[in-house]
Amino acid sequence: MNILIVLAHPERDSFNGALVDVAMARLQEAGHAVELDDLYRDNFDPVERASNYPMDSAADHFSPLAVQRENYKQGSLPADVQREIARLEWADLVIFQFPLWWHAQPAILKGWFDRVLVYGGLYSGSMRYDRGYFRGKRAICSVTTGSPEQAFMPFGRAGNMVEWLWPMHSSLYYVGYEVLAPQVHYGVQGGGIQYQEEAAFRARLVSMEEAWASRLAGLAQESPIPFSTWDDWDENGVLKHSHPLRWRLS
Amino acid sequence: MNILIVLAHPERDSFNGALVDVAMARLQEAGHAVELDDLYRDNFDPVERASNYPMDSAADHFSPLAVQRENYKQGSLPADVQREIARLEWADLVIFQFPLWWHAQPAILKGWFDRVLVYGGLYSGSMRYDRGYFRGKRAICSVTTGSPEQAFMPFGRAGNMVEWLWPMHSSLYYVGYEVLAPQVHYGVQGGGIQYQEEAAFRARLVSMEEAWASRLAGLAQESPIPFSTWDDWDENGVLKHSHPLRWRLS
Repeated sequence: MNILIVLAHPERDSFNGALVDVAMARLQEAGHAVELDDLYRDNFDPVERASNYPMDSAADHFSPLAVQRENYKQGSLPADVQREIARLEWADLVIFQFPLWWHAQPAILKGWFDRVLVYGGLYSGSMRYDRGYFRGKRAICSVTTGSPEQAFMPFGRAGNMVEWLWPMHSSLYYVGYEVLAPQVHYGVQGGGIQYQEEAAFRARLVSMEEAWASRLAGLAQESPIPFSTWDDWDENGVLKHSHPLRWRLS
Repeated sequence: MNILIVLAHPERDSFNGALVDVAMARLQEAGHAVELDDLYRDNFDPVERASNYPMDSAADHFSPLAVQRENYKQGSLPADVQREIARLEWADLVIFQFPLWWHAQPAILKGWFDRVLVYGGLYSGSMRYDRGYFRGKRAICSVTTGSPEQAFMPFGRAGNMVEWLWPMHSSLYYVGYEVLAPQVHYGVQGGGIQYQEEAAFRARLVSMEEAWASRLAGLAQESPIPFSTWDDWDENGVLKHSHPLRWRLS
């Protein structure tokens, strides 16, 4: 497989960075081609705005979707967006490695969605969900949290990880990806905050790296998170049989 | 009241911009002091990184939370972050006006959370939720969507608006805000995409503006979204009586 790792952490020498190293080494050993897409290293600009585009297409009124579509058609998308799209077209599997900041991905990765997944190119009204541009490809989030696992348990104070990742998972499915269950690394020390003794903490980081490494070998065989599909919706985009389960039992 | 409107849209001459104008006019007429915080106009940088800080505090290993805490203590936070914090301290009510992009706020507003709500200053392990820094203040999201309302209905293809806003609502509550139910403006034309005839569409925009204007007068009296509080959690941060309702019935 061709595997792209998208890293969104401001410090390469971090636990997020170490998880990338583990994944790259393990996946390359297994014979895969692996590329690292380090958004901070590349100084990726996450803000969608008129100045990203040639003057003539932005005109004097900036309407993001219209401008995305026009520039996709004309082949005049910003260079960094073109580079990201080429990486996605190359990859059979995309791994997103990031810390959970404010119940979501860091802004640099949120804006990667805003700018790279261009309307009229990578999605349209009829090219979405299971008819999405990237259908047949897979994606997975590998996420670190500051709070310990206990706080994220059902009824825990830090909330439910399924809910925090639901917007991003839904966005990946929107453009056709099969989304795998996330790998969550809980209670990672964030800047002088320590939840346990240093030695025990180090040992736990190692065990999280090992858990991640051992899962990687089977990613191509895992069952993705089930989502509703076009066949499930009526002509108004509502589930045909309004059953109480969001995720189909398959 | 002092009211801050945080706008996150790349085009001031947009429906999001019009909703800001409606709110400013109506709230000023009612005698409130209103300030506009236009993140695009101010070219707000949403990316949290070492270069935002003085060299000495970032050192050679950038740990965002530790650096935020240190710079808050030293009074050396970046100028734009200090400006945003001063605006929040001034405001009794904060209105966030933005389009829903990829099931969340635009990156420029996501990064506003990442950078402005600094650890060790605006929150800490013991200063969160109903003991949060901004307790007693209110916040509300005013959101536009591209897809029509029908798609966001229960079991609709576009998903549930409560879920898309849950991460942002939870983040606002995390720092103490009372969060009001959002004002959602559905099916707003996004760049050449029209869901209905132009005249009918214009009429609908006007009716959405009027609905927003008429709601504004009562924001101070509305009951906020109920959240669990410290009294509900045991020492492990888990609900004392693991009841099946996230939102308490009050």
